[in-house]
Amino acid sequence: MDVKVAFGSVLRDIRIRRNFSQEQMALECDLDRTYISLLERGKRQPTLSTVFRLAAVLDVPASEMIDETQKRLLG
Amino acid sequence: MDVKVAFGSVLRDIRIRRNFSQEQMALECDLDRTYISLLERGKRQPTLSTVFRLAAVLDVPASEMIDETQKRLLG
Repeated sequence: MDVKVAFGSVLRDIRIRRNFSQEQMALECDLDRTYISLLERGKRQPTLSTVFRLAAVLDVPASEMIDETQKRLLG
Repeated sequence: MDVKVAFGSVLRDIRIRRNFSQEQMALECDLDRTYISLLERGKRQPTLSTVFRLAAVLDVPASEMIDETQKRLLG
């Protein structure tokens, strides 16, 4: 599993846990819904600023998303 | 302070603590030395994969770099 795929799965899991749709995420983050979908499927790689924007909207520390990404990379 | 500047200062501090030159970092990460310099000065923004590569070479968890970045953003 590569970084993009691991991060995408973390993003998707937290978004669903928060009961956000991709549309809501996109609106709150000021990103395209298509881009959220590509991120979740590991087809795009976020910049660090995008990670912080997503984390802010999901109300989790960015470091927690990265920590979980690292666990999935290793697991 | 924005994300790029905060991350750059974290990168620089950990690199110096590890006694790595920018040249060594560049070589170990397979990145240009110029790019390392731009990152440290907050002129470029890393992708998530680059964050993981830098963290691996510096032998710190990527999440720790992000946690410290977040503290500097807020501080």
